[in-house]
Amino acid sequence: MKPVVSIIMGSTSDLPVMEKAAKFFDEMEVPFEINALSAHRTPEQVETFAKGAEERGIKVIIAAAGMAAHLPGVIASMTPIPVIGVPVNASLDGLDALLAIVQMPPGIPVATVGIDGSLNAAILALQMIATGDENLLKKLKAYKESLKKKIEKANEDLAKIQYKYKTN
Amino acid sequence: MKPVVSIIMGSTSDLPVMEKAAKFFDEMEVPFEINALSAHRTPEQVETFAKGAEERGIKVIIAAAGMAAHLPGVIASMTPIPVIGVPVNASLDGLDALLAIVQMPPGIPVATVGIDGSLNAAILALQMIATGDENLLKKLKAYKESLKKKIEKANEDLAKIQYKYKTN
Amino acid sequence: MKPVVSIIMGSTSDLPVMEKAAKFFDEMEVPFEINALSAHRTPEQVETFAKGAEERGIKVIIAAAGMAAHLPGVIASMTPIPVIGVPVNASLDGLDALLAIVQMPPGIPVATVGIDGSLNAAILALQMIATGDENLLKKLKAYKESLKKKIEKANEDLAKIQYKYKTN
Amino acid sequence: MKPVVSIIMGSTSDLPVMEKAAKFFDEMEVPFEINALSAHRTPEQVETFAKGAEERGIKVIIAAAGMAAHLPGVIASMTPIPVIGVPVNASLDGLDALLAIVQMPPGIPVATVGIDGSLNAAILALQMIATGDENLLKKLKAYKESLKKKIEKANEDLAKIQYKYKTN
Amino acid sequence: MKPVVSIIMGSTSDLPVMEKAAKFFDEMEVPFEINALSAHRTPEQVETFAKGAEERGIKVIIAAAGMAAHLPGVIASMTPIPVIGVPVNASLDGLDALLAIVQMPPGIPVATVGIDGSLNAAILALQMIATGDENLLKKLKAYKESLKKKIEKANEDLAKIQYKYKTN
Amino acid sequence: MKPVVSIIMGSTSDLPVMEKAAKFFDEMEVPFEINALSAHRTPEQVETFAKGAEERGIKVIIAAAGMAAHLPGVIASMTPIPVIGVPVNASLDGLDALLAIVQMPPGIPVATVGIDGSLNAAILALQMIATGDENLLKKLKAYKESLKKKIEKANEDLAKIQYKYKTN
Amino acid sequence: MKPVVSIIMGSTSDLPVMEKAAKFFDEMEVPFEINALSAHRTPEQVETFAKGAEERGIKVIIAAAGMAAHLPGVIASMTPIPVIGVPVNASLDGLDALLAIVQMPPGIPVATVGIDGSLNAAILALQMIATGDENLLKKLKAYKESLKKKIEKANEDLAKIQYKYKTN
Amino acid sequence: MKPVVSIIMGSTSDLPVMEKAAKFFDEMEVPFEINALSAHRTPEQVETFAKGAEERGIKVIIAAAGMAAHLPGVIASMTPIPVIGVPVNASLDGLDALLAIVQMPPGIPVATVGIDGSLNAAILALQMIATGDENLLKKLKAYKESLKKKIEKANEDLAKIQYKYKTN
Repeated sequence: MKPVVSIIMGSTSDLPVMEKAAKFFDEMEVPFEINALSAHRTPEQVETFAKGAEERGIKVIIAAAGMAAHLPGVIASMTPIPVIGVPVNASLDGLDALLAIVQMPPGIPVATVGIDGSLNAAILALQMIATGDENLLKKLKAYKESLKKKIEKANEDLAKIQYKYKTN
Repeated sequence: MKPVVSIIMGSTSDLPVMEKAAKFFDEMEVPFEINALSAHRTPEQVETFAKGAEERGIKVIIAAAGMAAHLPGVIASMTPIPVIGVPVNASLDGLDALLAIVQMPPGIPVATVGIDGSLNAAILALQMIATGDENLLKKLKAYKESLKKKIEKANEDLAKIQYKYKTN
Repeated sequence: MKPVVSIIMGSTSDLPVMEKAAKFFDEMEVPFEINALSAHRTPEQVETFAKGAEERGIKVIIAAAGMAAHLPGVIASMTPIPVIGVPVNASLDGLDALLAIVQMPPGIPVATVGIDGSLNAAILALQMIATGDENLLKKLKAYKESLKKKIEKANEDLAKIQYKYKTN
Repeated sequence: MKPVVSIIMGSTSDLPVMEKAAKFFDEMEVPFEINALSAHRTPEQVETFAKGAEERGIKVIIAAAGMAAHLPGVIASMTPIPVIGVPVNASLDGLDALLAIVQMPPGIPVATVGIDGSLNAAILALQMIATGDENLLKKLKAYKESLKKKIEKANEDLAKIQYKYKTN
Repeated sequence: MKPVVSIIMGSTSDLPVMEKAAKFFDEMEVPFEINALSAHRTPEQVETFAKGAEERGIKVIIAAAGMAAHLPGVIASMTPIPVIGVPVNASLDGLDALLAIVQMPPGIPVATVGIDGSLNAAILALQMIATGDENLLKKLKAYKESLKKKIEKANEDLAKIQYKYKTN
Repeated sequence: MKPVVSIIMGSTSDLPVMEKAAKFFDEMEVPFEINALSAHRTPEQVETFAKGAEERGIKVIIAAAGMAAHLPGVIASMTPIPVIGVPVNASLDGLDALLAIVQMPPGIPVATVGIDGSLNAAILALQMIATGDENLLKKLKAYKESLKKKIEKANEDLAKIQYKYKTN
Repeated sequence: MKPVVSIIMGSTSDLPVMEKAAKFFDEMEVPFEINALSAHRTPEQVETFAKGAEERGIKVIIAAAGMAAHLPGVIASMTPIPVIGVPVNASLDGLDALLAIVQMPPGIPVATVGIDGSLNAAILALQMIATGDENLLKKLKAYKESLKKKIEKANEDLAKIQYKYKTN
Repeated sequence: MKPVVSIIMGSTSDLPVMEKAAKFFDEMEVPFEINALSAHRTPEQVETFAKGAEERGIKVIIAAAGMAAHLPGVIASMTPIPVIGVPVNASLDGLDALLAIVQMPPGIPVATVGIDGSLNAAILALQMIATGDENLLKKLKAYKESLKKKIEKANEDLAKIQYKYKTN
């Protein structure tokens, strides 16, 4: 079983944020890999990783980083594979990481999701792959249906709360 | 020739920003469509558009909007196709649009690019489709090579500027 | 007893914020309803809700949401009823939600209150209805008087605090 | 013909921003008044104005101000009539005015619209009055229809732009 | 003993912030008064207070408020006495209160100190009065000397911390 | 005629901003002085200036600076005289200068006015001196009256603008 | 053993932040000194310190401060030695300190590191000295290698975490 | 004549900003080189450059970049030489570039100067080299003296401006 998505973190301290992505891939039965590689501390490994990803069969890379978050952009500059950036809140409420990831110069996009938005990064990764994979598209549709169920259930719970002038 | 990418703008005033995307698709010979649909003024057309996109063969949607930029997120909520959001600078230097696009709740990602980053949105769209299309991947690699050429050319121009203590 | 105000939340996690609105309506004896509907996870229900609100006798809608807070704007685009938006602090101190709610394009206003300002949303809702309802206007005036009492009481407590050079 | 909406500006320099509101009332045939009153330079007149508004038949007040924009909140503290605040961009891209208007303390709401959002303030004012006025509600619905027309027309124009790989 | 400085708070919840000012006046043996008056909930009392302050012998007013902090500006508009504004951190790290206090329009200054800066407000108040009171000026100079002592003492403590390569 | 107020600028490029202060002192017939002294380029002169100000009869210092605006705080640390800080917009809309001036540590206040708020700095300076000078207080009251006249005149002009449904 | 680096803090409350710098110098066996000197409370000592540093053999100064952080800039104005500024998060997430340190006027640079970035300040200090000291350069290279080891070790730990569809 | 400082720009559009640095090196008679290298478009050249810099005799690198400005950090990760980062204002008033440069993770500092602060970057570069070069230190001291002259001259000009109540 070869991985099709690769999760990269700038630091292992980002793992609690990225766990939701890993769990989503487990739930969707999609093989993936996780590595900690720092754009600043291990630039050679980042290069080896980024340049080899396509050949190893990786379809999408998810890169998470905080502060001056260069990892997603650096990887994007070294591979034609789409890179999803996850800004991690490590300072300034995550605004520094968001800007350092999303404001890429013309030519090298990074598909940025919200601050600490690892689940959305994982969903987006599969949406990208599903552009060429009908089975995966079906799975994603089923997943979206399940989201509605959850909020409908929440609404039912809400209906049970009592206020005197509440009418529903 | 059926379009595979669809560009949506919240307002025709966003066209000057989005032209770079259209020109890139022309350059890459990728059929696309452009429409102006407002999440707020024409919600029914947005819904018809979003729900029909997959069936019409659209692989990726690029949605641009300014201010309280809801269009990308609203479309993303109505289709399993990946949606790329382009924040347009119409106020507050584009920070309002960036936050209104990128900070999506868990379950509904929008792949956000930089403020006014329409070229990057177009490149990202093709990177997504190229996860299942080897020919397109080759084209994208060739495009990336051409970017290097440009900056190398710029560097040669720089070498000609004269300063007394400049050594290169 | 038919509801005249409808409270909508993007997520049940917003309930602790919105409780003050519910309690205010109880206090003012105004029938209301509460629902959790997500602009992104349950767009169809949002549409059904928004389009049916006027006919069901709803006069004002209060919509609360956090992050890329689209719910108030999306509802406002589907009904002629005034919509009050409550930005919920779920990230970035609530600044993302505030901008995503207040910066609406020309044609579709959302009456925005402060971050987590559910009580003010409820008061504003009744002020709107009171433009055509003299009884309600009287109640609101009485309520405003009671606010003054509270701060006068607070001032009396303050007068009891002892400092050596404090003269009042 | 007695005015039902009152537009107040902190300074006559805000008039270019507020003109859209005046024109909208003309278009909708709603009698209104405009005054320049400064919360800081003419506090007595502001008080006389705010306290007399209800009795003079004013249903909604629109107050515009820039910088440390106190006018909407000060008026709101002196009348039970709903007050709509328009933050005017006079410094810091209008962010100071937005925060100074929207972040009101519990008990005294100001219905805030976007920066320089005078048209939306005017529409919102009529939506408020329309909670008790069916004729006005009809007019507003017709207006909303006309907005759709405009964007549909824009879309037709867009369809005429030629790109080689554009398919619509 | 008549008060020469008056401390006003928008809400008694600001008391913990303002206590440092009260203690400083006790230390400097300057008679003062404290009151809670809300620009929004008790506008009449604010007016009575502001207009009577000069005649009662008040030389400087310190006004503290959070969020859309109008109190300092409103008081400044009603008295020729200098008003010192203290932005209280009640939301958005106090940035909303800072902007709502400091960005006053031409003609009505508020002497603004840092967020939660009540001690500085108190020192500034006495510096203002000391422009016409030589005794007070002497006291202030003595106080400034005591500040230096504190930091010199701190420096001595620092000198005792041991690091292997620390040389002082 | 000895100056009682001293205007200091970090750079002569701040003169256009500070002219309003100079003109106000001319209008109020208050002797003043202007100097350009840089906290960073001429620290010795700043020290000589700050330490000699009191003895030379200066009652209040107005210090203007942009960017990392240290001048007001540095002067405040060297004199018991009150220092008014004017943040000059030289970058980042003046937000950097505002924060660098207003956020002073406990013990050394700077009375901060709005961005580019030189007129307010001048008024505030005279309000400070007027705490011990009844004649000046009278002048300031007369000035405040003249501000009201201006806005009343503006209002009369506004009354002449014609809209079809305008009623005043 | 004479110190070559000098650490200055605006307040002893900054010591917990600056400890990492002290420990790094111990680890690298570089003699240093630490002092608390306030730009605002002890300006004379700051001057004595700054003007004497070069003669005492100090090669680089690290200055840490929070809020309106003037210390690094003030020292930089009084010495030709390079000054490294460390913005300390004492309010506004450290954004005020960052801007007050980094936005220096032309002529007086401060080498600014990230918010609370004391370790980086210490590394940078040694990099500066190493421009003229080959032995130190070697030590720094060894240190950089050790950083890679840490992240490689972290990656090994990551490899042991079990997910069902994780392939590495 | 071998260069000792190297200026790198992310794009030739940054040249107008960086010219002040080049002119300063000419003025100080310090050999330097300028190149345009993009962290994202020419990552291989950046690596070759960064890894070879030390051996080629470069003592300090100045790297300028806008938006998601990765260039300074990426170079810093590949060399033990100190790297000075210049945030270029290309969007969001330069705040994105500032945060993307200054907020580096522990271990890899970038000495950051103010937005568009190329002159300060050049001065800082020479201050770093001067830690091991007494001649250069003398030159820098002479340069600092010349800055004082300029502001003293400016002050003389200021003395000539006439106001009626100006006393100096």
